[in-house]
Amino acid sequence: MKYVVGVDLGGTSIKVGLVNSEGKILKKIALPTNASKGPKAVIKEIKKGVNLILKNTRRKIEGVGIGAPGTISFKKGTVEYPPNFPGWGRVHLGKILRNRLDKKVVVENDANTAAIGELIFGHGKKYDSFIMVTLGTGVGGGIIFNRKLFRGEGGGAGEIGHISIDYNGNKCNCGSKGCIEAYLGNNYIIASVKKELKKYPGSVIYKLVDNDFSNLTPKTIHEAALLNDEYAINKIKELGVYLGLGLVSAINMLDIPTVVIGGGVAGFGKLLFDSVENTILERVLMPLKSRIIVKHSKLKNEAGIKGAAALLFYKY
Amino acid sequence: MKYVVGVDLGGTSIKVGLVNSEGKILKKIALPTNASKGPKAVIKEIKKGVNLILKNTRRKIEGVGIGAPGTISFKKGTVEYPPNFPGWGRVHLGKILRNRLDKKVVVENDANTAAIGELIFGHGKKYDSFIMVTLGTGVGGGIIFNRKLFRGEGGGAGEIGHISIDYNGNKCNCGSKGCIEAYLGNNYIIASVKKELKKYPGSVIYKLVDNDFSNLTPKTIHEAALLNDEYAINKIKELGVYLGLGLVSAINMLDIPTVVIGGGVAGFGKLLFDSVENTILERVLMPLKSRIIVKHSKLKNEAGIKGAAALLFYKY
Repeated sequence: MKYVVGVDLGGTSIKVGLVNSEGKILKKIALPTNASKGPKAVIKEIKKGVNLILKNTRRKIEGVGIGAPGTISFKKGTVEYPPNFPGWGRVHLGKILRNRLDKKVVVENDANTAAIGELIFGHGKKYDSFIMVTLGTGVGGGIIFNRKLFRGEGGGAGEIGHISIDYNGNKCNCGSKGCIEAYLGNNYIIASVKKELKKYPGSVIYKLVDNDFSNLTPKTIHEAALLNDEYAINKIKELGVYLGLGLVSAINMLDIPTVVIGGGVAGFGKLLFDSVENTILERVLMPLKSRIIVKHSKLKNEAGIKGAAALLFYKY
Repeated sequence: MKYVVGVDLGGTSIKVGLVNSEGKILKKIALPTNASKGPKAVIKEIKKGVNLILKNTRRKIEGVGIGAPGTISFKKGTVEYPPNFPGWGRVHLGKILRNRLDKKVVVENDANTAAIGELIFGHGKKYDSFIMVTLGTGVGGGIIFNRKLFRGEGGGAGEIGHISIDYNGNKCNCGSKGCIEAYLGNNYIIASVKKELKKYPGSVIYKLVDNDFSNLTPKTIHEAALLNDEYAINKIKELGVYLGLGLVSAINMLDIPTVVIGGGVAGFGKLLFDSVENTILERVLMPLKSRIIVKHSKLKNEAGIKGAAALLFYKY
């Protein structure tokens, strides 16, 4: 058995865990990121977290894997302009931590980390190739083909969230229209629910948020659906349709018919997954229909730490 | 210098050429396919064509490359259900011709053949990775990444024509909606021009087709555009927008920002290409914008024979 440390660097918290080569988390802690204090403070906090995890462990550690937001050069370990991290231009995170911790350090962006995590510890045990989709504030992704992350020419491949399903559709933050992120990104979901609920005065969602829409999260919609709220059920199905429509283009182009969906909104569960699968089956090219597989990420809530740990077990 | 024979197997004619390793066609002939007579007759005709080309040539031939329609297993050299070839179930075209000709024979589908042709003899001399698009009856494609054809899991990758730009858009033959093939496939172009022209009674297209729409081809639209026909110019620009919109999804997902466009409709030229490029630049993700390159296939009218010949020079 081998052991590594996985670090999930988020905007509000840094999650650090000791993970074995079977993907089991043996210990974990969370520290505040304190992003507003700038890169030095954040790096100090990461170091502190890793050392806390390593304290009282006699295990030999293979290295530290870090999943981080922003544009990452995984070869150099640099992090560029992560959103919500003021003061970060380009930071040599890998190099700095390698020196401070005297360990092997691998840095990847969070979407790639999720895909590699799923490959090493999740559905990758069964599938050599799949399209990974992560549903969160944004809609990210990664393409795993023959057990390798497909990076494209500049390292930015896998932007499933910016497949457009309607060139006149919802305006996306990226400047384009109809990107599936502009339907399934958390803020877009919340905004559309707020707007649409006016037509559904009887929805249980009003009660769940105490008539205060600032309490509304994607989780509220799931709760409402579990309470058989018609609006919430239809909303989740609709989101599945949008995601499925985008995936049809991806699957037709890549001939990779296995899809793994993770991130918070994936918690909508069977309602969402059935809708995604039915939409794909309805529209995808004929020879692909019999091979379509849609799965929920196996890493779920622990995808951050486990994915970061998986970076040390992935063959670069 | 090495020499190979390239065979472009089309629904109406079989084009055969002797091609050198620089991609120069030294001799070529065309024979009728006689597809209605069934596979045996077609195979006989291919053999006849190859032998005619080899007659009076003292060159040593490396092998025979064949670009064919339908679903191809390039490893086995089988051709399955090529459209417009009655009586073809699964035909072991590669094996049969290997025996009859006593040469190495490689079979690929026409879209892959075009992409490999472009890689070996065209823009691939400069670019290691590009998205190939072929505009014809259908809209085909191929993904070249690091000088390899990306085949996906089942060998069917590269279906650029079935990226959808509008989930409520034009009905596509594949059963889906809004596929770019349902805008740029030859028959779709002709059908939409016929319909739209009613509103443009002054268009020079009426004259060019002698008021008989059965004479209308994509070439007519190009001719009209060259005569400064406003409708034709706008139509070509519009087609470029549709193609560009589909390519945005492909480029965002693959991080392959170089696009090579071939096939008949690519003959629309600068009007089309500028429109494609502008649309991509308007919509593609920010980090990709500075790297976008849109090129016309270098093989043009000879893509069929040259692409088939290139199969022998491609490292499988």
